[in-house]
Amino acid sequence: MWRASIVTIFPEMFPGPLGLSLAGRALGQGGWGLETVDPREQATDRHRSVDDTPAGGGPGMVMRVDVLARAVDAAAPPGDTRPRLLMTPRGAPLTQKRVRELSAGEGVVIVCGRFEGVDDRLVAARGLEEVSVGDVVLSGGEIGALVLLDACVRLLPGVMGHPESGTEESFSGGLLEYPQYTRPQNFEGLEIPAVLTGGDHAKVARWRREQAEAATRARRPDLWAAFRAAHDGPATKGE
Amino acid sequence: MWRASIVTIFPEMFPGPLGLSLAGRALGQGGWGLETVDPREQATDRHRSVDDTPAGGGPGMVMRVDVLARAVDAAAPPGDTRPRLLMTPRGAPLTQKRVRELSAGEGVVIVCGRFEGVDDRLVAARGLEEVSVGDVVLSGGEIGALVLLDACVRLLPGVMGHPESGTEESFSGGLLEYPQYTRPQNFEGLEIPAVLTGGDHAKVARWRREQAEAATRARRPDLWAAFRAAHDGPATKGE
Repeated sequence: MWRASIVTIFPEMFPGPLGLSLAGRALGQGGWGLETVDPREQATDRHRSVDDTPAGGGPGMVMRVDVLARAVDAAAPPGDTRPRLLMTPRGAPLTQKRVRELSAGEGVVIVCGRFEGVDDRLVAARGLEEVSVGDVVLSGGEIGALVLLDACVRLLPGVMGHPESGTEESFSGGLLEYPQYTRPQNFEGLEIPAVLTGGDHAKVARWRREQAEAATRARRPDLWAAFRAAHDGPATKGE
Repeated sequence: MWRASIVTIFPEMFPGPLGLSLAGRALGQGGWGLETVDPREQATDRHRSVDDTPAGGGPGMVMRVDVLARAVDAAAPPGDTRPRLLMTPRGAPLTQKRVRELSAGEGVVIVCGRFEGVDDRLVAARGLEEVSVGDVVLSGGEIGALVLLDACVRLLPGVMGHPESGTEESFSGGLLEYPQYTRPQNFEGLEIPAVLTGGDHAKVARWRREQAEAATRARRPDLWAAFRAAHDGPATKGE
């Protein structure tokens, strides 16, 4: 069973939204596992402190390496070979490629930072992979962990209703998705593009491909450049 | 009061993790507001359908424009000038700059897509801004909405314990954060860098700046290029 262990001072945040929908149903049926480890239980003083002031000064508090290391050890005892991640804005941006790899493995151990961050020595001491989700500052690593878990869990066998979704294929190809439409045919004067209702499957496929490429080029020049580099040739006319 | 209205077929996912911690305390004290609108309540058939098969074929289901438009209208009646966002992998990546703008306004209306996505006509028909969080495929827009809300809410006056956190300053400057340390001085043989405990504030500031630049250069060449372009000059030696 794919198993996630979350090191967090807010264990009540889990499973949270992952307790509902397809992920929640799979969790309830043993399709994947989730446990939390609260670092406060590893604190040794009477206040159960998990943090202290930053060395060198500055605002806020930093999470202690000794307390967190004990929490990581409790979540992943010797012999546990699951990847260990630290959610942090300093990390490498999470990609669908990494999500696929993690999803195909035994599970993950995720450390959620809070306050001004985690004592940096924890990364080396416990072999953590630093991961970020988006270039925004969050109040802690917990919601980033939910992003990562949702992305992984939906790829587990049996979780999704449609394992071969178009969304999935689009992302794998390095392009944004093409736009989708459904009934009604006319909404406030806006029509479904005629090609989609014409019944010519080859034309539909070509139109969707063009739309996906146009959207990627216009909205995500970074993805477009990577796509072009990977395919090494002209993808559409008019460039 | 800053007010978020979420259009979602999973209203039970909110406030979720945002009901705890500083965001949750502020929510309970009226520091910000949160409501959900379930599109199923706007459906007109007896199955309360919110989706239909994709025009042009393909796997999965697409959320209907007519049902969602009614839900958006219920969440944001005429005269409601809050920005309207659609969480979708097709969107522009969320940035801290956009988070600051949204946080300084009246609030947000967020439409959460599910299944294979939302009928594209909704974007034009209701003036939606398409936003993504990270290049991963999620099972729906709800967890992306939690990311956006957490990022915004922590910037509201009175929500954060430390409004001028170092994390915040680091991100504003376009660099990753410098590494943080706290007691104990020695952990499993790993020491806090001596400069941080030497008491020379100018040296500490210089070291942190160098660390932030080195981390950004090594881990996020994209951010580093943007930082260099914005500052238009040599930032560190040895390049």
